[in-house]
Amino acid sequence: MNYQQIIRNVYSDILQKENKGKVPDYIPEIACIDESKFGVNFTDLDLNTFGCGDFEEKFSIQSISKVFALSFVYEKLGEKLWERVDVEPSGNAFNSLIQLEADHGIPRNPFINAGALVICDILLEISENPKEELLHFIRDLSEDHQIFFNEKVASSEMENSFRNAAMCNFMKSFGNIKNQPDAVIELYCHLCSIEMTCKQLSNSFLYLANGGKKPSSNKQFLSYSKAKRINAILLTCGFYDESGEFSFLVGLPGKSGVGGGIVAILPQKYCIAVWSPRLNEKGNSYRGMKFLEEFTTQTGESIF
Amino acid sequence: MNYQQIIRNVYSDILQKENKGKVPDYIPEIACIDESKFGVNFTDLDLNTFGCGDFEEKFSIQSISKVFALSFVYEKLGEKLWERVDVEPSGNAFNSLIQLEADHGIPRNPFINAGALVICDILLEISENPKEELLHFIRDLSEDHQIFFNEKVASSEMENSFRNAAMCNFMKSFGNIKNQPDAVIELYCHLCSIEMTCKQLSNSFLYLANGGKKPSSNKQFLSYSKAKRINAILLTCGFYDESGEFSFLVGLPGKSGVGGGIVAILPQKYCIAVWSPRLNEKGNSYRGMKFLEEFTTQTGESIF
Amino acid sequence: MNYQQIIRNVYSDILQKENKGKVPDYIPEIACIDESKFGVNFTDLDLNTFGCGDFEEKFSIQSISKVFALSFVYEKLGEKLWERVDVEPSGNAFNSLIQLEADHGIPRNPFINAGALVICDILLEISENPKEELLHFIRDLSEDHQIFFNEKVASSEMENSFRNAAMCNFMKSFGNIKNQPDAVIELYCHLCSIEMTCKQLSNSFLYLANGGKKPSSNKQFLSYSKAKRINAILLTCGFYDESGEFSFLVGLPGKSGVGGGIVAILPQKYCIAVWSPRLNEKGNSYRGMKFLEEFTTQTGESIF
Amino acid sequence: MNYQQIIRNVYSDILQKENKGKVPDYIPEIACIDESKFGVNFTDLDLNTFGCGDFEEKFSIQSISKVFALSFVYEKLGEKLWERVDVEPSGNAFNSLIQLEADHGIPRNPFINAGALVICDILLEISENPKEELLHFIRDLSEDHQIFFNEKVASSEMENSFRNAAMCNFMKSFGNIKNQPDAVIELYCHLCSIEMTCKQLSNSFLYLANGGKKPSSNKQFLSYSKAKRINAILLTCGFYDESGEFSFLVGLPGKSGVGGGIVAILPQKYCIAVWSPRLNEKGNSYRGMKFLEEFTTQTGESIF
Repeated sequence: MNYQQIIRNVYSDILQKENKGKVPDYIPEIACIDESKFGVNFTDLDLNTFGCGDFEEKFSIQSISKVFALSFVYEKLGEKLWERVDVEPSGNAFNSLIQLEADHGIPRNPFINAGALVICDILLEISENPKEELLHFIRDLSEDHQIFFNEKVASSEMENSFRNAAMCNFMKSFGNIKNQPDAVIELYCHLCSIEMTCKQLSNSFLYLANGGKKPSSNKQFLSYSKAKRINAILLTCGFYDESGEFSFLVGLPGKSGVGGGIVAILPQKYCIAVWSPRLNEKGNSYRGMKFLEEFTTQTGESIF
Repeated sequence: MNYQQIIRNVYSDILQKENKGKVPDYIPEIACIDESKFGVNFTDLDLNTFGCGDFEEKFSIQSISKVFALSFVYEKLGEKLWERVDVEPSGNAFNSLIQLEADHGIPRNPFINAGALVICDILLEISENPKEELLHFIRDLSEDHQIFFNEKVASSEMENSFRNAAMCNFMKSFGNIKNQPDAVIELYCHLCSIEMTCKQLSNSFLYLANGGKKPSSNKQFLSYSKAKRINAILLTCGFYDESGEFSFLVGLPGKSGVGGGIVAILPQKYCIAVWSPRLNEKGNSYRGMKFLEEFTTQTGESIF
Repeated sequence: MNYQQIIRNVYSDILQKENKGKVPDYIPEIACIDESKFGVNFTDLDLNTFGCGDFEEKFSIQSISKVFALSFVYEKLGEKLWERVDVEPSGNAFNSLIQLEADHGIPRNPFINAGALVICDILLEISENPKEELLHFIRDLSEDHQIFFNEKVASSEMENSFRNAAMCNFMKSFGNIKNQPDAVIELYCHLCSIEMTCKQLSNSFLYLANGGKKPSSNKQFLSYSKAKRINAILLTCGFYDESGEFSFLVGLPGKSGVGGGIVAILPQKYCIAVWSPRLNEKGNSYRGMKFLEEFTTQTGESIF
Repeated sequence: MNYQQIIRNVYSDILQKENKGKVPDYIPEIACIDESKFGVNFTDLDLNTFGCGDFEEKFSIQSISKVFALSFVYEKLGEKLWERVDVEPSGNAFNSLIQLEADHGIPRNPFINAGALVICDILLEISENPKEELLHFIRDLSEDHQIFFNEKVASSEMENSFRNAAMCNFMKSFGNIKNQPDAVIELYCHLCSIEMTCKQLSNSFLYLANGGKKPSSNKQFLSYSKAKRINAILLTCGFYDESGEFSFLVGLPGKSGVGGGIVAILPQKYCIAVWSPRLNEKGNSYRGMKFLEEFTTQTGESIF
């Protein structure tokens, strides 16, 4: 399979088509981004890697970082983690409080905001310096020390986090948040503010394509079974209320962020990262979705 | 991989453990089944096949037949099918009307009851003799003419289908049912009443493990892309509100029925069918779920 | 209090102002009504009566007839009626199925469609000829034999009653409908099709202003306590999701219908009926609401 | 009407019957109250007043104070108040977030917690010293300076106000809270902590029975129309999800609090306050409800 050729072709096709969707306006640092940015990077398990367009430019990975946080916490806690967060698709908009009420404060999965807040709460319980440890973990996964929080983005998000504060207080009323809501939200907003390039992303996510082990170093970051299970949750829950659609059209486990990034994984084969800031109605990158749909159509490869 | 040995071991392990859950009581023909029945059948793409326990005994496949109906209609209508039914997990109990109201009569996916009713409605539109044509299609897939509706089961279900009648009328009020509700429900109840053995099921579902083509005859029942997409929907929506859990624990596309049957598929490899009548709280076979979880744990193979 | 003068003044004020809202289009016989129709009739307990505008023209009273049906059934069954229907405001649109699901098939009150369907179901249980008996009851209340079902309207509604059929089947799945859904809906649609004038309405509802007794004949149609309690339900539930607003602005128990009629009652004093076909967003007569708000503002009289 | 005799009889009847329900346990100062406390006080517009049992003992009036806060804010803001809070019954449990999501942050009415939080937010906007001004207003209404916040109760509630914090942040995300959530909750918890006796309550609420004017001083605290409208909201929304039931059984505008108090008003006649700490399932005083039902049954007087 000549992945490089297919990626180049699909990239230039998409580039010529209209760029639709909207850049979210509630985070000033993201709202002012150049909407024409478009980058793709592919890395396979043999560490062959190459990119197109803006693949070496950093952007706000936002919810993509929830996968790192989940991996970190899951490896430490094991299966008892699932007493505090479920693994079912939400069937509702990503920030809905309705399902939390019906489920007595247990979020449907770790990738909706409520679930990621619980993961952050656990991080605060198990770590002395959660921000530092988490950043360290991500740098290790990426084998790259040039990964940072963007404090401006984190501050912006903290100032606009009333809905997250609502969810956090709501879950605390059910006993499913142990720390002070403010501390949980501060960590959550930092988590979302991490900036990476497509290249860094496609490299750092290789552990999920390889049973939890980084192919470069053979270091096992996550057990084989846990890596599989995170892929399973990514497939059913990685794209909010568009997870079924992504599974249907693309057929790969993946995760999107409101910064316009998407990471997708073909287990045993490769990891691919795409970035384009304009989002479709469901909050996923318009061009990112189009690119990945066309890419898996042309390769004919998916998990199905 | 010695599948046969693994299946034997897992089968006898599960058999020795407590059999939990309940047989549903609303269909007399199913309520009086022997609760200790337990069968498994495995068939790979090279047509190696073998079974354990009650693998040659017929049972009511119930919702598993929704996959056949979807395949039949999808191949005929193509992608415009998705104007009338979505491909998103429901995030709610399988017979809920709430989401239908929010989504203006468009069911979340073709495997919840509302979605299967829409598929039946389409069948009535595109076929002169939908019951006969559908049965013919399933017999072709199975290469076995000994597959029938159970008229007693169909009648029982018709007498207890007030909730399905509610959904059917509700969708008709939104314009998403074209035929008379009674006719739709009559076809739906027949569809659910089909009886097959584990052996027949694991053989007939091979087309989904093989890109739409039966490996025995090379007959293409469904296009490659459509077969992949049905697998994708099975993964996200095949087990009602336990789809995430099945994806997490088993990691295969599959479909369950309230008759206690489950079919699961490892694309490019095999198809496996399990039957045990007692259901867990979410309405899926208790032993069937346990068997498949343990089976994929021991083989180490899943789509992730 | 010179009611006649106030009514004349308010009537001519409202007539000069813009007539807003929409005539519902799902019942052809109602859709083609002259939108400028506007009638008012007032009758007090001393049987002083007078009207303005189209007060002697018949119109489809629609849901207003639910009050008659409730009175008939309540007097026969007594308080055990409330085992099958509640007395709480619905807090949702008038035809929602969501609350029915949460409340296991028990409608929130007898004036939402679901509740009126239960009342019709009970009528079928307790009466040999429910249509005839009900009509007889209403004629008695009105002391007027010129009250009829409109068979055309009833037929139209039956052809468009998929949502009511959904609710009826849904409640039957919970065991709260005893008869065949078709029979219940047939009676319900006839009930809605009754035609009366403002004059007939304001006269017939006097029993609710007078503790259950018709002031003309002193015939007790309903016990004192039951009449009070129907007024209480009218106040909290008579205007669908605008009941609080009507209570707030008008301050009288009352009932509206999609035919554009409204009846309101000041206990111990009078009954007033208004008719104007265009409905506001909540489904209540636009001019009817305006008239009654201004009328009670000018009289300074309400139950509060 | 010999109210005094009726009250004595009903009081002793209720006292002899079993005392059911539960004292809420989430506020330590309320949880440790003597469950057998039972007081009633009646005051008419001629200032005849008398009480039974523990009518001169102070208790935590909790949500009853929402009526004072609403009166204060409504008189200052006028009808534009209703841009930020609606007047419809909620049809859901008193602390539900679901309806807030559907209504974009506008609470259904000023007596559910969300609505009272908005009233407190407005108080913070229009007053320099809202706690002092509010207390002053209530003392004026009561003509009694011995009314105070209970700081211990306020502190307890602040420590357990995660659900209120959730609602406050949620409404702020919709722009319907202008101040810091912490400040709003601090005021809200103080409002709830006010302590009064049945005697003080029945006296202070006379303004609502008298068109906004205190009968003792003829001081107009609230315009005639606004007093009527508050009565209307009390009738439809004063008892959470039991408002329909209270209207049905008692037939008076009123307000309950989780401290076990209930105030009810017969316009143009009297005001009555009852206190008994054990609450029924809907969160209203068990004996208080029973007393008022029996009282209006025996007097035969209600607004209907």
